[in-house]
Amino acid sequence: MPNQPNIPKPEAQSRRVGFAVVGLGELSAEELIPALRTSQHAYLAAVVTGELDKGRAFAKAAGLSDADAYTYEQFEELGQRDDVQAVYIVLPNNLHRDYAERAAKLGKHVLCEKPLADTTKDAEAIVKACKGAGVLLMAAYRIQYTPHHWAAKKAVAGGKLGSIKLLDSIHAQVEDDASAWRLSFKQAGGGPLVDVGIYCLNTMRFVTGLEPEWVYAAVHQPKGDTRFKEVEESMSVMLGFPGGLIANMLTSYGAVKTDTLRVLGEAGSVTLDPAFLYVGLDLELSDKAAKTTPQFAAYNQFTLEVDHFAECIQSGKTPYTPGEEGLQDHRIMDAIYQSARSGKRVELEKFSGQDVFRNTDNVPKHIKAQP
Amino acid sequence: MPNQPNIPKPEAQSRRVGFAVVGLGELSAEELIPALRTSQHAYLAAVVTGELDKGRAFAKAAGLSDADAYTYEQFEELGQRDDVQAVYIVLPNNLHRDYAERAAKLGKHVLCEKPLADTTKDAEAIVKACKGAGVLLMAAYRIQYTPHHWAAKKAVAGGKLGSIKLLDSIHAQVEDDASAWRLSFKQAGGGPLVDVGIYCLNTMRFVTGLEPEWVYAAVHQPKGDTRFKEVEESMSVMLGFPGGLIANMLTSYGAVKTDTLRVLGEAGSVTLDPAFLYVGLDLELSDKAAKTTPQFAAYNQFTLEVDHFAECIQSGKTPYTPGEEGLQDHRIMDAIYQSARSGKRVELEKFSGQDVFRNTDNVPKHIKAQP
Amino acid sequence: MPNQPNIPKPEAQSRRVGFAVVGLGELSAEELIPALRTSQHAYLAAVVTGELDKGRAFAKAAGLSDADAYTYEQFEELGQRDDVQAVYIVLPNNLHRDYAERAAKLGKHVLCEKPLADTTKDAEAIVKACKGAGVLLMAAYRIQYTPHHWAAKKAVAGGKLGSIKLLDSIHAQVEDDASAWRLSFKQAGGGPLVDVGIYCLNTMRFVTGLEPEWVYAAVHQPKGDTRFKEVEESMSVMLGFPGGLIANMLTSYGAVKTDTLRVLGEAGSVTLDPAFLYVGLDLELSDKAAKTTPQFAAYNQFTLEVDHFAECIQSGKTPYTPGEEGLQDHRIMDAIYQSARSGKRVELEKFSGQDVFRNTDNVPKHIKAQP
Amino acid sequence: MPNQPNIPKPEAQSRRVGFAVVGLGELSAEELIPALRTSQHAYLAAVVTGELDKGRAFAKAAGLSDADAYTYEQFEELGQRDDVQAVYIVLPNNLHRDYAERAAKLGKHVLCEKPLADTTKDAEAIVKACKGAGVLLMAAYRIQYTPHHWAAKKAVAGGKLGSIKLLDSIHAQVEDDASAWRLSFKQAGGGPLVDVGIYCLNTMRFVTGLEPEWVYAAVHQPKGDTRFKEVEESMSVMLGFPGGLIANMLTSYGAVKTDTLRVLGEAGSVTLDPAFLYVGLDLELSDKAAKTTPQFAAYNQFTLEVDHFAECIQSGKTPYTPGEEGLQDHRIMDAIYQSARSGKRVELEKFSGQDVFRNTDNVPKHIKAQP
Repeated sequence: MPNQPNIPKPEAQSRRVGFAVVGLGELSAEELIPALRTSQHAYLAAVVTGELDKGRAFAKAAGLSDADAYTYEQFEELGQRDDVQAVYIVLPNNLHRDYAERAAKLGKHVLCEKPLADTTKDAEAIVKACKGAGVLLMAAYRIQYTPHHWAAKKAVAGGKLGSIKLLDSIHAQVEDDASAWRLSFKQAGGGPLVDVGIYCLNTMRFVTGLEPEWVYAAVHQPKGDTRFKEVEESMSVMLGFPGGLIANMLTSYGAVKTDTLRVLGEAGSVTLDPAFLYVGLDLELSDKAAKTTPQFAAYNQFTLEVDHFAECIQSGKTPYTPGEEGLQDHRIMDAIYQSARSGKRVELEKFSGQDVFRNTDNVPKHIKAQP
Repeated sequence: MPNQPNIPKPEAQSRRVGFAVVGLGELSAEELIPALRTSQHAYLAAVVTGELDKGRAFAKAAGLSDADAYTYEQFEELGQRDDVQAVYIVLPNNLHRDYAERAAKLGKHVLCEKPLADTTKDAEAIVKACKGAGVLLMAAYRIQYTPHHWAAKKAVAGGKLGSIKLLDSIHAQVEDDASAWRLSFKQAGGGPLVDVGIYCLNTMRFVTGLEPEWVYAAVHQPKGDTRFKEVEESMSVMLGFPGGLIANMLTSYGAVKTDTLRVLGEAGSVTLDPAFLYVGLDLELSDKAAKTTPQFAAYNQFTLEVDHFAECIQSGKTPYTPGEEGLQDHRIMDAIYQSARSGKRVELEKFSGQDVFRNTDNVPKHIKAQP
Repeated sequence: MPNQPNIPKPEAQSRRVGFAVVGLGELSAEELIPALRTSQHAYLAAVVTGELDKGRAFAKAAGLSDADAYTYEQFEELGQRDDVQAVYIVLPNNLHRDYAERAAKLGKHVLCEKPLADTTKDAEAIVKACKGAGVLLMAAYRIQYTPHHWAAKKAVAGGKLGSIKLLDSIHAQVEDDASAWRLSFKQAGGGPLVDVGIYCLNTMRFVTGLEPEWVYAAVHQPKGDTRFKEVEESMSVMLGFPGGLIANMLTSYGAVKTDTLRVLGEAGSVTLDPAFLYVGLDLELSDKAAKTTPQFAAYNQFTLEVDHFAECIQSGKTPYTPGEEGLQDHRIMDAIYQSARSGKRVELEKFSGQDVFRNTDNVPKHIKAQP
Repeated sequence: MPNQPNIPKPEAQSRRVGFAVVGLGELSAEELIPALRTSQHAYLAAVVTGELDKGRAFAKAAGLSDADAYTYEQFEELGQRDDVQAVYIVLPNNLHRDYAERAAKLGKHVLCEKPLADTTKDAEAIVKACKGAGVLLMAAYRIQYTPHHWAAKKAVAGGKLGSIKLLDSIHAQVEDDASAWRLSFKQAGGGPLVDVGIYCLNTMRFVTGLEPEWVYAAVHQPKGDTRFKEVEESMSVMLGFPGGLIANMLTSYGAVKTDTLRVLGEAGSVTLDPAFLYVGLDLELSDKAAKTTPQFAAYNQFTLEVDHFAECIQSGKTPYTPGEEGLQDHRIMDAIYQSARSGKRVELEKFSGQDVFRNTDNVPKHIKAQP
């Protein structure tokens, strides 16, 4: 049936990379575990959670056995599991560092949800730990793995838009649950900026291949709203990129779901709206001759992501979004918060080691295959 | 035929207000003179231009006689024309003040293209001159006269969106002609901000009924591009409104035609895209229950505008966008340029006398009549 | 301003073809006379109407003199007007023949609104009269002159859609005025089929370059609705084209404005929706790689049409839609009504002489110039 | 995360209805088994297939044991499984009758994929067998269970469109595999009409609550295309409904995926495009005041369907689409094929017992809950 993702035949399981998913929240249950089930190069080998019962239920539902479920305390037992080559850390941000370091110690490769950590310092520690242990580290941004975002990037690079002049991106959604860990500064390290605004930031960097030189930001944190005692409700950010390119972004936990990206050039534009959803992305490339919406075979963003990391593990290549890529977002977000606090523009230092697409023609296979 | 504007029957010409159009550029030729021909309460009585031949050709084409064409030097002869009650100034910005003051002296009401002038000082002088002469002054913003923008305003005020959290607006287009008066600082008083960015600014003020408290801006003026020797190519502006509401806007003469407005609330959103075109506006109101695109009978924005001013002249009422409304945009644009120069946030002082919709329920008739 | 039609410079008036517009209804007033004013190769030289006062008012508004207005009785006086080379007949369908024959007798070229006549017999007489008098005859279908419909035709011919399998077209609108001549069988010769359904028919023939071999039709003419005493309210038509290609069409005077065309091929599709409006056409070409909406500079459909006929008169070439093209629609519509009456499928005979695009690469200049 | 279906809490498994899925093709693997996993009132209890290994793999993946997998020969062993209350038949059409009769004999309720059978006679036999055995029978059309199609139905019934005048529906897709059982007349009982065109037919009946009185059809079956030796490639069908309402439909296995439904009334219209996909349906309600796209919480069509049947089993109520509803489509499709063969219009007899929505206000719970 035509509205189904076209699932390529998986490799034999003996060849595939076994993953332990650490943390069984909504994202793991609804997206990551199903994605691993349709992966070509990866499979779910174990789950780690706070409640053993819950873990066993997930294991069983995924065709695993009781022995494949671990408590957080039992995490180190994964060291004896040769079939678990990688862990996927899906925990509150402030726990990323602990589990990444423990995984590195066990010699397990680390796929870590975005943001890489709760603070820049912890993000640096994660990068260092993985490097020291000789394991791969990848920040789990989705957008570097989808045909839609790649088509946007290629349109920007391809010259049809002429010089790029302006960027505009919004990512907002309503966070209603005052008790969510995302609203705890200690657990999240920030508000909507680090959770959803990071997509605007990371995607603008990805599609342009450029790093911001300065930022200016304003923040809104309404008094009397119990949800926003510790983190901001909304932020507006202006970013200066090389060559006079200016970008605006808006992010919020207080406004209806909106996720867009516009790139305006002198001869054409790129619009993604929605830009960051798991499904239903809509891309329009516009120039004088036509408005074009490229069509892609259906795909699962999480499957593409875990498959990429599995292939890197198989081949020893650096992932498209190594830890340094995630670290760079932390440095920029630090500058954004600093600007919001001071009311002043903040300059950024040069940084290297970010995503491996920067100024390369390093296009992933499944993207190249697209028409 | 159903795709034609529904033109209401005009009043008898003896009742209608005679206009002299001052300046016969593209806007006058393509939009204003045709609009006056389908007006209910106004009609074209005279034209004023630099070349008498051109003026006579326009007069004839519009069913007038040679005697209805004047040169700029003959402007004062309009004083003898009792049938000319109003002038519509459609000249480079730096000429607005001179003709507004001369018109006021003749006792003619003044409809003046946006921006009201080239500088705040001149804008103030125009307001003063008209007040002193007891003639009406209206800044010719279109957006306060269309059902689309009113539906947006009413949606924002109506409560269905919940609290408004974020605004985002873009108005960009390519200016290719290096010799255009719009690229002369002396004639225009600024670049894309004063010409097209002003729509973002003015419309955000209109739909929210709020005035910005501070602005922050960054500018791009590429060296070596002969078009941008005197004025900016692109600007990004952040605006702080009361209650923590933050707005972003982008404007440019170097990027493809783009004109959008988004208002994001906690329970819904308003999107205009295109937001500022003469025809083809598209409005979407979105909440949990539905995405809704109100349908309106076809209309001509310029006709609605001149009809409103004609009705004010007939009835003695203050126009919806008096000179003070145009003056306020000048004050804000001053602050924007100041911020761009200094790299610092600029606070705005309180100001009153702006558009007469501010915090009122003063909805124009033709809007109320909409379903 | 970017949302204005790009009007090419007109030729000197001495070179241009003078038109007399015969009939001053809404179409003439709102579309044809304005279109002639922005034409490159044509201009309005005279008007013919029932009321001399009305004619003179139109003449004056168009920059003509009282002497350029004629009553229907004075039609033959156009014979003395060398500057009137063509007449544009914009009258109830049953009057087309009379004025076409009279124009031909005066040696004037004939541009005739669609449908060519009220009956096939009259359409044949018009073709014969013009041929006999050596004047050009053109049926005023708009769709053969727009970049949108040409892009649709070229997409069908271009092979990217693969074999064409199915066509679907709808043209409906509400006719509310029970006294309209369009609802009089004597004056119109039929109902929505001959007025709006003819666009579906004619455009399907144009984009495919094929002629139907058989038709089947069903009709709805509600009893008790005073509007539909003489003509049908709604019709559904199935048409068989060569090669097994099947088309459906729906037309109505009783349903909300809807005008669409879909062409489905094995590898792609063409969708026009709206397909027949004067402005705001939307074309989407879809294949596996992309959905594409070609962008065109703004244009006036009626200007393109009269310019084409003027150029044919200047050069002696056959118009793209000669009388035979209009006659062929009459033959097909006869068969459609016959099928609706009998409840049986009706076979069509072969016919030649239709539009000059049929199986040629005869693409108009202004279309070729498109990107 | 907002782009996930909102999955209501399931009942305790002891309360839920156990299903055996009979046939493990793509639809079962990709849609039905996952749907049963997120069902409120149903769960997967067993699978039946031709290859035991395949069955066991599916069972394991779904958290079942080897003992829950059966071969077709072992079908009768389900009789001993009290926990299996229903079977879901997902087999080539010509096998529906056999398995429905065998299931009825075992006292199992029958949910049967559309079309109900390969012939009207077999469809009648299925209805009779289930009635005789006192088990429930439901035809697995999806569209009676989605908020989108219900909103369309309610818009038609609600009066805002005025009288309904015209219907137009298309369902086409490319069938490339010449060996597919869908292209075998023996196995499928017909071509695209019985497989995808049936959606047009069934949905037009659903949204109007009306039964066609006559049909006219034309067929295309290209010689030399090995795919279409036994069944048609394309069909066009005209249907006459009571009150003069006319409908057109097109269906094909030779044209790109297209699935649309339009309902045109005198005051408004309903458009579904896509109309029949598993995900991504787009509904627009249009009247003079607005174009409205109702928004619904994400849902899984198959989950809603199996949940409905499970609830009927729990409560003893007749399903919304009983066997008679499926049987009626067979009768109409027989008439369509007869018309295509004869080239003549075919009248239909009155029939009763179809879907239980016909002329009732019997709106399902999950639909009512929608805003």
